[in-house]
Amino acid sequence: MTLTTDRPTGTQPLDAISEAIAAAQPAIAPEGEVKNRDLVLIWYSGDLEKTWASLILATTAAASGVNTKVFITFWGLQAFVKDEVRITGETWMQKMMSVMQRPGISHRKLSKMNFLGMGPWMMGVLAKKYGVAKPKELLEAAQALGVEFMPCQMTMDMFGLKREDMIDGLGEPVGAATVIELFNNGAASLFI
Amino acid sequence: MTLTTDRPTGTQPLDAISEAIAAAQPAIAPEGEVKNRDLVLIWYSGDLEKTWASLILATTAAASGVNTKVFITFWGLQAFVKDEVRITGETWMQKMMSVMQRPGISHRKLSKMNFLGMGPWMMGVLAKKYGVAKPKELLEAAQALGVEFMPCQMTMDMFGLKREDMIDGLGEPVGAATVIELFNNGAASLFI
Amino acid sequence: MTLTTDRPTGTQPLDAISEAIAAAQPAIAPEGEVKNRDLVLIWYSGDLEKTWASLILATTAAASGVNTKVFITFWGLQAFVKDEVRITGETWMQKMMSVMQRPGISHRKLSKMNFLGMGPWMMGVLAKKYGVAKPKELLEAAQALGVEFMPCQMTMDMFGLKREDMIDGLGEPVGAATVIELFNNGAASLFI
Repeated sequence: MTLTTDRPTGTQPLDAISEAIAAAQPAIAPEGEVKNRDLVLIWYSGDLEKTWASLILATTAAASGVNTKVFITFWGLQAFVKDEVRITGETWMQKMMSVMQRPGISHRKLSKMNFLGMGPWMMGVLAKKYGVAKPKELLEAAQALGVEFMPCQMTMDMFGLKREDMIDGLGEPVGAATVIELFNNGAASLFI
Repeated sequence: MTLTTDRPTGTQPLDAISEAIAAAQPAIAPEGEVKNRDLVLIWYSGDLEKTWASLILATTAAASGVNTKVFITFWGLQAFVKDEVRITGETWMQKMMSVMQRPGISHRKLSKMNFLGMGPWMMGVLAKKYGVAKPKELLEAAQALGVEFMPCQMTMDMFGLKREDMIDGLGEPVGAATVIELFNNGAASLFI
Repeated sequence: MTLTTDRPTGTQPLDAISEAIAAAQPAIAPEGEVKNRDLVLIWYSGDLEKTWASLILATTAAASGVNTKVFITFWGLQAFVKDEVRITGETWMQKMMSVMQRPGISHRKLSKMNFLGMGPWMMGVLAKKYGVAKPKELLEAAQALGVEFMPCQMTMDMFGLKREDMIDGLGEPVGAATVIELFNNGAASLFI
């Protein structure tokens, strides 16, 4: 039920995602029938490693039949801008901020050992070799599995992000009160 | 009930905090009457963005009637030193550490894109434009809303922080066992 | 019940750990008798400060009679490689990654103010002075107290880590699905 295969080394093509989706069919049943505890991720970071961590947790949870909701805030929203969008925002400040941190799920950088892109490239090579899906694939899997992504309204405003800058399939922008309400309903909570 | 206004762009003066406080009156009712699940934040980071995230979550939770307790530890305690205190600690090591990271809620730095203060300044300008309160205002709002701030005794000791260095209204320093006890009572948990 | 002593300054030798272990005897009772809510830490970071935070929370929880499980992932696994192992991995990429971030619990670096090791050294001096145990001591205490450490299979694969590289006493490598299942059982959750 994880999105990685459990062989110690591996070279065969990755189909863990389709397996996970197949295994998860009952989980996409109407909400009322799900017995599991909800999971709420606050996705704050824009770093490659944490992007991976968030997506692996979210897809695994959803594939295990857990109602999974992700509140995307601050740097995290950069991962949900379309890959092909280069500059976002209306004011020069907002544009400058988007230039300084290239948005898009396929352009995340490591928090350390980035080395002008060599770190992320090596991670990508190793991930492929060991059957770990790319962030972009995991994001698509998460959406297919019914993970609900809720952008933070305040961050959208501050960075000048518009709906047309963002990938398809995101929910309506919401505020922190929505997250607090989900906690009140007993959800497990992670800030990543 | 959030501390941001929901207009896409905005220039009118910020009064979201007073609104939140007004809306929250019932929440400051005696503890026994509160039905919501408690929220425990472990406030570990000293970065500007995470300071903002912690304060927005804490104020929103408190304004929604949630008993909110914040355990302040490691770099997080730097945000609770009085803004006007410049050097803290008794030994040269402790003093040196305080020199290297200017303490105070109004002196937090971005974790990236700091650019000698330009990043935080731009964030401040954008926050003001879009009706997001400053960290200092949010901290005052949090205290007015009844958020309980508990400094970590161990961190106070290691950094040589004294009660007179810290802002008013903090609770007694406690240890990690206090946090664990709050988890046992079912609180939602975030490490920020 | 914390692992720090509560005197404001201190010079006497540290025996907080042995006290904690003694106090915790009932906590190591059979699982069925424990009434406390479980704690699940996702230990993601390899930084010295977060290593400390994770260990203090885990040991305090275990010493308070809480079933404590730690899922070790990404950079976090570096802390669980034996101190004397210098290079890990099979491919040149994996070896290079291990060279760039010296593994081992005693070789963690601060996330900031590292200054070629002076920061960690100062933290070590201050920790000793104020009766805070070293990461290595805390890790041994955590194991003695029954904290269960579960390495992330995917990270082991990607970094080419082998069981013989790792310290003794770790559980079998598992995937994210194990963590999700623990959340479903109501555990408190922290991502550090």
